[in-house]
Formats: sequence, structure tokens, C-alpha cells
Amino acid sequence: MSGKSALERNLESKGIEPGDSVEVVTSDGRVVQGVLMPHHEFSDERIVTVKLKSGYNVGVEPRSEDAVRLIEKADRKVAGKKARIMSTESSETAASPLPPVSIVSTGGTIASYIDYRTGAVKPVITADELASSVPELTSICSPKTEVLYSVLSENMRPENWRNLAERVAAHLNDGSRGCIVPHGTDTLGYTGAALSFSLSNLTGPVVLVGSQRSSDRPSSDSTLNLLSAAKLCMDSDLGEVVVLMHASTDDKGCAIHRGTRVRKCHSSRRDAFESVNELPIGTVEDGCVVLQREHEKRSGGKVQVDANFDDGVAMLNFYPGLTAWKFKKYTEGASGVIIAGTGLGHVHQELIQEIERLTKGGIPVCITTQCIWGAVNLNVYSTGRDMLKAGAIPLGDMLSETAFVKLSWVLSHTDDLTKCREMMLTDMRREMGERRSL
Amino acid sequence: MSGKSALERNLESKGIEPGDSVEVVTSDGRVVQGVLMPHHEFSDERIVTVKLKSGYNVGVEPRSEDAVRLIEKADRKVAGKKARIMSTESSETAASPLPPVSIVSTGGTIASYIDYRTGAVKPVITADELASSVPELTSICSPKTEVLYSVLSENMRPENWRNLAERVAAHLNDGSRGCIVPHGTDTLGYTGAALSFSLSNLTGPVVLVGSQRSSDRPSSDSTLNLLSAAKLCMDSDLGEVVVLMHASTDDKGCAIHRGTRVRKCHSSRRDAFESVNELPIGTVEDGCVVLQREHEKRSGGKVQVDANFDDGVAMLNFYPGLTAWKFKKYTEGASGVIIAGTGLGHVHQELIQEIERLTKGGIPVCITTQCIWGAVNLNVYSTGRDMLKAGAIPLGDMLSETAFVKLSWVLSHTDDLTKCREMMLTDMRREMGERRSL
Repeated sequence: MSGKSALERNLESKGIEPGDSVEVVTSDGRVVQGVLMPHHEFSDERIVTVKLKSGYNVGVEPRSEDAVRLIEKADRKVAGKKARIMSTESSETAASPLPPVSIVSTGGTIASYIDYRTGAVKPVITADELASSVPELTSICSPKTEVLYSVLSENMRPENWRNLAERVAAHLNDGSRGCIVPHGTDTLGYTGAALSFSLSNLTGPVVLVGSQRSSDRPSSDSTLNLLSAAKLCMDSDLGEVVVLMHASTDDKGCAIHRGTRVRKCHSSRRDAFESVNELPIGTVEDGCVVLQREHEKRSGGKVQVDANFDDGVAMLNFYPGLTAWKFKKYTEGASGVIIAGTGLGHVHQELIQEIERLTKGGIPVCITTQCIWGAVNLNVYSTGRDMLKAGAIPLGDMLSETAFVKLSWVLSHTDDLTKCREMMLTDMRREMGERRSL
Repeated sequence: MSGKSALERNLESKGIEPGDSVEVVTSDGRVVQGVLMPHHEFSDERIVTVKLKSGYNVGVEPRSEDAVRLIEKADRKVAGKKARIMSTESSETAASPLPPVSIVSTGGTIASYIDYRTGAVKPVITADELASSVPELTSICSPKTEVLYSVLSENMRPENWRNLAERVAAHLNDGSRGCIVPHGTDTLGYTGAALSFSLSNLTGPVVLVGSQRSSDRPSSDSTLNLLSAAKLCMDSDLGEVVVLMHASTDDKGCAIHRGTRVRKCHSSRRDAFESVNELPIGTVEDGCVVLQREHEKRSGGKVQVDANFDDGVAMLNFYPGLTAWKFKKYTEGASGVIIAGTGLGHVHQELIQEIERLTKGGIPVCITTQCIWGAVNLNVYSTGRDMLKAGAIPLGDMLSETAFVKLSWVLSHTDDLTKCREMMLTDMRREMGERRSL
């Protein structure tokens, strides 16, 4: 567990522990009341963290050793955060340890803490820090933590996907009931797709979770998302890669999105993630897992990993003014191209000869739509039919992000255009085919 | 009006007119019942078009001159289409002509007709064809039609925007109460933004309309969209460029979206268009125009045109695997760059030096989010702050498409980076600043 500061040890010796209500007289003479939060290993030794009535956490420096006064002991030793999704009976089973659930962290807001001296958001560095950031986890499962990366997700690369897939498989094959992957939200959907194609024969859920608000804010979604992910690992038969995030702006529950079908649709809302062209697989609400829709079940045996990605795929959204010349320059040297066309998947007519040139050169050119919802259909208008004649591969209702990941994955298996086309048009991880209303 | 075929004249001589219910014995011996549709100038002379009970139109060849039998005369001489948004009193005012509303057509599904011999969707070529395709228009206004282009909108270019802006201004300055612009839906949003920045001092609404289903289909949205657009031109004080499309999948009404705030969010649904980061300005329902939200009013004087666009702006969505090398190649020679970043507007850290290099070279690099909803905020995470230091221009909640159009427009006014930045950060056409919930 995280190291205790001298100050914290001193408080403990007086019977004051995280979770208790306290009053602090600060070094600058203010009086602050609230719930004492656990000390974070990397925070300033002189600082105690107090959760105010408003829900916000503040870091304050007590005026002296005696400046922290106990107001009321906590009922339970769970500091601060709501624990309503915790099953009350689980503390009873402490004698027989709970089944293991792995947490393989990659970074992002969900795997960060606030340094209350500077106010900066800092990434967690050690597995213990990660586990101790949400102590309620231990009432649901026996968390096995690993900090694989500590990066903001905009800095994730295909090579990170490979390592991550391998670690997730190792954890599942080592007996974990599921694997939770804390991850920055920026490219969460891309990684969801990458793990989906990389892993097969899943013996349990692989649950990517993120957080849109850092844990010092009253509106933070990190605790509910993490606890719901643990519940999903423990209480379901799911054998798929999913993204689990808030289902609405309140704290009522989380939605479970298929890894190949999910998109960050809002830059800041907690319910930013949406399943695209299908409904979410299910929900976790009040600690209760409900899987409403068809899904892959846990398999027996061992999880298989096949996690290579070609790094030469170019992706671009078509726009008016994208000339053949610009397009040519951008796709030069690419091993494959994803074009998110307009509407049903269209591009300007002058690009069609470039699609033909690339295709003749053995480079797959796949078409998605930049419309978010709906499918590509190149049979309706003359533009589309000409694109098909030129060799364009229409990807139905597959998300552009998923298409990019899939093509990168497929091209690491074959450089034969016919085989590549066949694989791109085969539904492998429920990434295409179904329709849902908006 | 469109030319009448010999067959149609023959029917007329027998008192059978478009709108009447008829029974046709076809050349291959079938019996077809339905409503006679107007003959289209470019359709085969031997064919009559009949709207079936199912709502679908079919083209059939009568076995002989006498093979078309009248079942029931139409109550009104309005063929086929629902006319419920037509105000019944307007036919009374035929003596004093209705005010002029211009229709400047650019092409797309809405400005096309079906050749019932071949089944092909063909673009309208003449202004008369356009006017006659929705005869109910004449009960709302005196349509003044012009076919400026006949292109699928994926083939629209910035130079087309300029010509279009000039023609729209000319029509308004010639006394039209408003200007309707039929347009393909693929790049409707881009043209909406382009006209928004190009036109000022608008004396009436400029209403872009499209159609997601061609007019031979029972579910076609073209008639309701066109008639609602005419109503908006006649019955409102609006002095803005807007996009008017179905508000829902039924035929209950249309939503009025600001030209700088609208996106095609679905590839095929009739209610594909949505206002992004704000609510629609208003609705047209049952022929009734309601403007719920703040908007620019009709101005006096003359419409001004300032419609030049720099054609060197490059736009791209960031994705994992977009290396500095690829980014550099793509932006080589660009006069400006729009990056739709992930989440709050982020890119991989290795691109930041490229942003700095471009900025130092006087090339503006503007940041939007690929999340659809929400705003860019580069102050929250270290990546964003580093991007700001490198010179990135964060565009708040501006749509990527609008940002592309605006930067193209701004760069035709100045190549000074400071001035460009200032213009990009100034809200000119309500393209940024407001927030709405999802």
C-alpha cells in the first residue's frame, strides 16, 4: 500500500484515520472541516487532504501537529467516495479471499492523482498507488495491479497496443476473472478496437475504463467506472473487449460498449462515450450487471494473442478542396488507406483515379463515412459506383477508428490485396453489420 | 413549364390530368391503379408515371391510347405529393401575385427526377423543371428559379461557393423575400458555412435544403423540405444562412439549423442533420414557422458579398500512428492547417514540434475536436498547454467543417498570422461560443 507520511502516522496514533470527519486549523489560520482523505505517497508530507462538504478535495497544511481535530469517526473505513455499488456481504467473505481481477493501467485521468500542494494532476506510478486509489475495489475482488504505462492516451501508439494485449492475455491466462484497463479517454476507442482484434478465445471480460473528470472533483466518474468494471469482471459471462463509462451525466450507472463500436462523442461530458450503429451491450447499475444484448461468452482454455499492427496505414476525412494532388501526396508510401467519405462514402470525382492507381498498386483503399452514424453504400449514386469500379472497399457501418485499427492489423497478416479485401469485408469482432436507430 | 408528351395531351383531351386516379392496362398486360403524376420533359414519351397506393411511383407504358381509364377526378390539381403545409387561402390571392422567392439550385438528390423508363435518378437541367417538380410552391410564393449547377455535392469546390454566394446575393438584391438553395446533402454543411461567411447584411433567409431520399420513394423528404423552406422565406424575419431538413423520421416537420453549426450526422436517415453544440434555431411544422432562439434579423439595404476562399488549407483528423513525418508530408505547402484532435483537442507529443515549425513559418495551425460535441480546451492537460506554447490556435466549440471553411475564407483576407489568429478567434457568424447539452 502507499507509504504513510509522518503526519499521517501521527494522526493515526491519535485514532484519526482516513474517512473520519475532521477539523483542521491551517498554517495560514483558516479552519477547514471535512472528511480526511488517504495520504498519497507522492504528495507533500506536510499536507493533509480533506474532502469538503461541496465534494471538492483540498490539500491543507495543518498549523501544528495538534491542529487536526477529530469530529466524528467514520462508520466504515472507506474514505470519501460513494460505495453504493459495493455488495455489503463481500466484507464477510474476507476469510476466503475474493477471486482475482487484474488491473493493467496505461495512464490517463483515471490513473492519476492530485498533488494538493501544487494542484497538478499527476499520473500514478506504482501498482500499489493504483490499488489504493479506490480502496472499495477490495470488497468486490482481489485486485492484481500492474502499471504498464503512464501516458496520456494521445501518446499511445500501435506498439503500445501490442504490449498491452500481451499483458492482458498473461493476466487472464494466470487465472484472473477479468482484466480492467484504465486508459486515457482520448484514444480509448482505438485501443478498444486494437485489443478486440488482437485477443481471441477470451476467458473473461477485458474492460477498458477511463475518466472524464479527475478524482479531486466532486463530479469525478473514476470511482464508479472502476467499481462497475470490477463488478462486470466478477458477475458476468462476457468474453469480449468492452469500454465501460458513465451512461448518463448523473452517477446512476455505466454503459458497456463493444470495443469495436464505441466512440468518444463529446470532449468533456462524463457520458461522452456512445455505441455507434448498435446499442450498448448492457449496463452496470447499482452494482448490478445486466447484459441485454447478444455477446461472446467466456471461453475455456487459453486466451490467444495476435497483436501485430502495420504502421503504414493513412487515414483521412474527405473535404471539399481535397484535390487529387493533395490526396496523392498524403497517401504516398502508405501501405493502406482509410477514407472517411461524405454521406454514403463519397469523394470528389477527381480522387477516383487515385483510388484506382493505389488499388492497381496493391494498396487497399477502404471507405467509411464521416457521418458518425449509418453505413457506407456505394451502390446508390454514380460517384459510389465509380469508386467501386476503381477498387474501393466499402466498409458498411464500421467506425472509421475501428477501420483504421482493423486495416493496420490485417496488413500485418497479409499484403495480398484480395486476401486483405476479404478480411476487411469479414465481420470478425462484431465490428460491422448490425444497425440501430439513432 | 415542362413540355407535355403526345400521350399526356391525348389524356388531357379526355379530361384525364395529373392528380386524377387512373387505371392503366400496360403494354405487357398488367393492370396498374394509382394517381397520375405529371409527365417529366426528359422521360420517355410513351411512359406515364403512376403513384401507387404504397407511395412508390412507377413508370408504365399503356397498351394503347385508350388503356388509361379515369377512376376519379382529383379534388385539387396538385398531383401526388402531400400539400398539407400549403396555406389554403393563398390560391385566393392569385389575382395579386405572391412575393418572389428565389430558388438557386446546385444539384443533388433534391434537384433530380426519376426517369421511369430506365429507373435512373437524373439531375434537373432547367429552371422550369425545377419549379414544376414541386407545383405546390406556387401557392406559397412566386418562385424564381435558376439552375446554377447540377452536381453531386461531393464535387462542390470552394470556387463553386463563390459563384453561389454571388448569385444568392443578386437574387436577394433583386427583391426576393428569401433564397432557397437545393443542394446535395454530402457537403451541405460546408456550403452552409461558406455562404455564412461570404454573405453579410442579409435582407432575407438563405435556406439550404437537401433530400435524403429521391422523389420517387414514398419516404421522400424533398417536397416537405422545399415547401418548408419557402414558408421560412415568406413568414419569418430571419436574416441568416440556414440549413433546413427533416426534424425527425416522420413527416411532422423540419428543423432550422444555423449554417455554421450543422452537420450531417447520419449517412441515410432523413433527420440526418443536427445542430452541433447548440439547439436548432427553430422549426417549420404544419406550415407554421417558429423561431425559438436568438437569430440575426433581416436587414435593410443591400446584401454584401465577400466570397473568396484560399484553396491551400489542409484538414486532418489526428489518429494514433500519425507520425510527425506523415503530418509534415501532409501539411507541406499548406497555407493553413486544421487538426481535429482527440478529446479536448490533443495530438501526439511528437507533432507539437511540427505545429511550432509551421507557426514559426507563418502558417496558422487551428485545433478542433473530432468528438463531434463539446469544445476544445488546451488548458487542462500538459499536451494542450504545450500545443498552445507551440502556437496552436484553439477554436473552442467550432465544428471542424466550419473551421476549415472559415480558415479558407480568412486566409483570402490576410496572410498575417497575428491577424489570422485574431479573426479565427472572433465569433463572426455565431460559429462558436454557445454550449448546449447533448
